[in-house]
Amino acid sequence: MDRSQRLLAACRGEPVDRPPVWLMRQAGRYLPEYRAVREQVSFLELCRDVDRAVEVSLQPLELVGTEAVILFSDIFVPVLGMGVEVDFRPGPTLAEPVRTRAQVERLRVPDPRDAVPYVFEILHRLRDELAAARVPLIGFAGAPFTLAAYLVEGSGSRHFGALKRMLHREPEVLRALLDRLTALTVAYLNAQIEAGAQVVQLFDTWAGLLGPEEYRTWVLPVHREIASKLDRDAAPLILYVNDGAHVVDEMLEAGADVISLDWRVDLADAARRAGGRASVQGNLDPCALAAPPERIAELVRGLAEAGAAARGHILNLGHGILPDTPVEGVRAFVRAAQAL
Amino acid sequence: MDRSQRLLAACRGEPVDRPPVWLMRQAGRYLPEYRAVREQVSFLELCRDVDRAVEVSLQPLELVGTEAVILFSDIFVPVLGMGVEVDFRPGPTLAEPVRTRAQVERLRVPDPRDAVPYVFEILHRLRDELAAARVPLIGFAGAPFTLAAYLVEGSGSRHFGALKRMLHREPEVLRALLDRLTALTVAYLNAQIEAGAQVVQLFDTWAGLLGPEEYRTWVLPVHREIASKLDRDAAPLILYVNDGAHVVDEMLEAGADVISLDWRVDLADAARRAGGRASVQGNLDPCALAAPPERIAELVRGLAEAGAAARGHILNLGHGILPDTPVEGVRAFVRAAQAL
Repeated sequence: MDRSQRLLAACRGEPVDRPPVWLMRQAGRYLPEYRAVREQVSFLELCRDVDRAVEVSLQPLELVGTEAVILFSDIFVPVLGMGVEVDFRPGPTLAEPVRTRAQVERLRVPDPRDAVPYVFEILHRLRDELAAARVPLIGFAGAPFTLAAYLVEGSGSRHFGALKRMLHREPEVLRALLDRLTALTVAYLNAQIEAGAQVVQLFDTWAGLLGPEEYRTWVLPVHREIASKLDRDAAPLILYVNDGAHVVDEMLEAGADVISLDWRVDLADAARRAGGRASVQGNLDPCALAAPPERIAELVRGLAEAGAAARGHILNLGHGILPDTPVEGVRAFVRAAQAL
Repeated sequence: MDRSQRLLAACRGEPVDRPPVWLMRQAGRYLPEYRAVREQVSFLELCRDVDRAVEVSLQPLELVGTEAVILFSDIFVPVLGMGVEVDFRPGPTLAEPVRTRAQVERLRVPDPRDAVPYVFEILHRLRDELAAARVPLIGFAGAPFTLAAYLVEGSGSRHFGALKRMLHREPEVLRALLDRLTALTVAYLNAQIEAGAQVVQLFDTWAGLLGPEEYRTWVLPVHREIASKLDRDAAPLILYVNDGAHVVDEMLEAGADVISLDWRVDLADAARRAGGRASVQGNLDPCALAAPPERIAELVRGLAEAGAAARGHILNLGHGILPDTPVEGVRAFVRAAQAL
């Protein structure tokens, strides 16, 4: 099987010769070649600079041998088109947090193709570059709850107290904000699929901050709406929830093709629960890439065995690669997956 | 039942008239009266100042009506006696992280009664103050894995990469560090029980960073050892693991009297799993204390119903009270528990 066939088949639960492998945040600071590009431009400029974004998206293909390429961008890029001023230091930081109904109502929901055209140029260019080698191209978006978390809080946070105050005191304002972000996300991902993304991943970094009951109220309906409105015949959907070991069943109810699991999840258990409903992706602790190569290989074999209980399995981490990860560990992970 | 009887019975799974209630970090920055004391002394001075520590320990009893008093201190206090230099800004920050076997071997395991005598004076004084009113006194310690996390990392961290590098590359050094911290913790908690603590709680703030398999290797044996070496006839043991929704079964295997659950855990499910083996404590999201009082009361009733499946239930939060919590919300939580 070529790399595109293998990834798409694993997403859809069709037979594969072995699990495909890629890594969340595979284009990132752990690579000296990425840092060299970043020295020339700011993070936001890099997201907007088509040539450089294409260059860093492709780096891990050559440098570590990953079997898919993911668009280089940031989950906050589509939000720039809503009229919000965002700075990255390094997480998104807002000049003015969104805390009132009036502020929510001022947020535009533009056509992403007009608002952030460079994203789609990057995708077109990547697809052209990758077609001959049959390497699959992955698009992505941040999920509405996570975008709302940053918008309301104004930045990253350990507890997201301002977000939760809104949830408890002005639920209708949060609902209105999520509605706008959901419309944006659907349009953004469909435009990515149209521009050449063959798989799309939805990243919900902060939804795991909610207990199961609140997750069912605030997050699951949003995931379901997105899953139902994407062009899924053209591109399967992967759903990732960070720190979501307590909501695996709820993730399965979203109707995505693949659930991408945090490293804290027992993969064998999640794969059994997923069964024929969804494929699974994951879920090595990114910190384990610091282990000796033979230990990494052992962990990869364990994950492959655990993931086999689901209809399909994509080898990946349980969280994005961290900046101080040894490149050799990333290579060992990919090699071990390819030796299965 | 008086407050001491109710808490002890709930811990041991004996019949109670209703669940007892207290709140993790109930003596803290959300109280203006606490902040007034803190303006006079640094955090570490407050931990060492017997009069003031007694004063702030007792504040929530009067101010919010909580039904137990917990020693005011910090999980890092016993570590001061090991010969480690620690600053609080506000989390523990080390002048020199512990990263080598030689550094681990230099750590002393002193008798806590000699090394940090003020802790036991505070407990004696509190027990004297509380005896007549029959208010139970809770002691506590940080769990070895959490103390090791700070010692190796040198401070708090989102991913604790240095700690995990040690776990993957020099497991024998981490093991030696945990052994020393386990000996310290056993001695420290037994000395607290001897000084008047009627219940003790072990806080494992960072053990939830490990997946289930690593948790079984690195955390569970430590918890079991501590549980087996404490004077449990004199004081039951509560085990708290932050962000531990994925290791509830492993928490139950530690053999503690009570498992104290993060707010992300479905309490009804955990209570069913606990059954006759342990009581449960928790688990309101501390951010929910920002909700209107009637909503807090509704959430408390839901928790009481969920907790009823275990042999005993102590109403509490799923994490310590956050500094920006409205005092009125804390009072509403206690009142709702007392109205059950």
